[in-house]
Amino acid sequence: VKVAVLGVGLIGGSIGLAARRRAGANVVGYDPDGCALSRAVEMGAIDEPAFAIADAVREADVVFVATPVGVAVDSVRLALQEAGAECVVSDVGSTKREIARAITNPRFVGGHPLAGAETAGVRNARKDLFDGATWYLTPAAGAAWSAAGASSHGQDAAPWAVERLRGLVERIGARPVAIEPDAHDRLMASVSHLPHVLANVLVARARSAVEADGTSAADGTLGAGPSFRDATRVAGANTAIWTDIYMSNGDLLVEALDRAIEELSSVREALDAGDAETIAAWNEHARSEREQLQRAGLVSGP
Amino acid sequence: VKVAVLGVGLIGGSIGLAARRRAGANVVGYDPDGCALSRAVEMGAIDEPAFAIADAVREADVVFVATPVGVAVDSVRLALQEAGAECVVSDVGSTKREIARAITNPRFVGGHPLAGAETAGVRNARKDLFDGATWYLTPAAGAAWSAAGASSHGQDAAPWAVERLRGLVERIGARPVAIEPDAHDRLMASVSHLPHVLANVLVARARSAVEADGTSAADGTLGAGPSFRDATRVAGANTAIWTDIYMSNGDLLVEALDRAIEELSSVREALDAGDAETIAAWNEHARSEREQLQRAGLVSGP
Repeated sequence: VKVAVLGVGLIGGSIGLAARRRAGANVVGYDPDGCALSRAVEMGAIDEPAFAIADAVREADVVFVATPVGVAVDSVRLALQEAGAECVVSDVGSTKREIARAITNPRFVGGHPLAGAETAGVRNARKDLFDGATWYLTPAAGAAWSAAGASSHGQDAAPWAVERLRGLVERIGARPVAIEPDAHDRLMASVSHLPHVLANVLVARARSAVEADGTSAADGTLGAGPSFRDATRVAGANTAIWTDIYMSNGDLLVEALDRAIEELSSVREALDAGDAETIAAWNEHARSEREQLQRAGLVSGP
Repeated sequence: VKVAVLGVGLIGGSIGLAARRRAGANVVGYDPDGCALSRAVEMGAIDEPAFAIADAVREADVVFVATPVGVAVDSVRLALQEAGAECVVSDVGSTKREIARAITNPRFVGGHPLAGAETAGVRNARKDLFDGATWYLTPAAGAAWSAAGASSHGQDAAPWAVERLRGLVERIGARPVAIEPDAHDRLMASVSHLPHVLANVLVARARSAVEADGTSAADGTLGAGPSFRDATRVAGANTAIWTDIYMSNGDLLVEALDRAIEELSSVREALDAGDAETIAAWNEHARSEREQLQRAGLVSGP
């Protein structure tokens, strides 16, 4: 199988490594940054470099667009135009509504591998980056795809294109899961974008508590439990990438924030009123919700 | 050294195991639950069981009160009364202002090991539970202890008592850190209690997003990234324990919540206005705050 990777950063480089080592693919890479491109060759992430998108995609069976979000739509368009009539084009962007609306070609299948948000650059690329990771595919432009098989209106991806991409994603080591673009973005607002916002809020609160305790803070001996480390690991994640992600899902993230603020406000009222019963019931409810999320596959066991 | 442990659950049992194996201590355990007490003997967490607090503490050099928070003050009082005049009494409660106000005996030194909130019961006890963990000590009732050495007013713990406890905590494998009760509770509101509240909020938001996408949720194939798993690990933690913790630190947790809600509201406004510049600046600020927390010892490296 011939694969083209447009943008050989952490994600593109890891796709190249995994596709070569695990799917026996021949991988051509393109990146406007010549230094990243050389590095990708040295690391074995790509078989050969291309110096234009048209050259990279000419012979490809599958193209992965792994550029910054801002230029993804244009790169997908160019790839669809320059590649052969049987070539499948996908992307790896963190939100899917916008690109699903913008690209109406049946050879395009949106994608989003859940991996790698905390580091960047081809130097961190690994062939096992996607091992066992969910890799969302959004072949539909609105209709339910997984329920109806190939669906009824013109903007959906062609079934053969979806199958080819799905097969390659599996050989790369990931777990392909089909989902509607709308449902994807709504889910990400809650399970990815909101956690990142809350991580930022937590470091601000902790900083202010540390500041209030000048003596102990000065000698660097304070400690926090594992729950704090876990909850703040993604605080202040790569600003360029994350500003794009937040803005591209702004409406749904605002909705998630509004509901989070509502819940925090009622917890605050119960605490202020010394209402232990309400706090206990709220915590029990969270426990049962977490168990339901485990069954839905969203979190692993306790 | 002779140690008494009142309450042989996860924390008390682990103290017993670590004190016996690492400090060569002789450990007597007391628990109103005879079953837990037998189990503690079988597991080697205590050398011998006692069937009354008075019997447990009679010969002890150090007593650890590891009962539920609700009865901790009474157990500390009884231990101070029944133990010898050179016995040090400590506790392991998650908040420290209340007990520091209630107990004015110089042989009492408040304590709080940062470990084990997610499981419970002596069956989960481990001799390495506290390895490298911060173990806060609150010998002062208000004045700065670490800066001033023994401090000036009558309610502080005796220096010899603090030193004995500190030495034992170190031999157990933990990292003793002295802190004011007020500063401790303020810090915990931000780095422990608020993260638990936010974890509960996150599972509620995710549940609602999963519900909105009936099709994909039904087959249990949805996935989320590691940031969601990390941020929700403590959601719905042991309700009995956590309701006590939340209520006992209610005022400072309300303060932390108010500020968190303020910050979330301004992020919400910036998103709603499409103000990418503000979002980018806010995220950069979080990055720098996280780096400062790393220097203060509160989170480990990236």
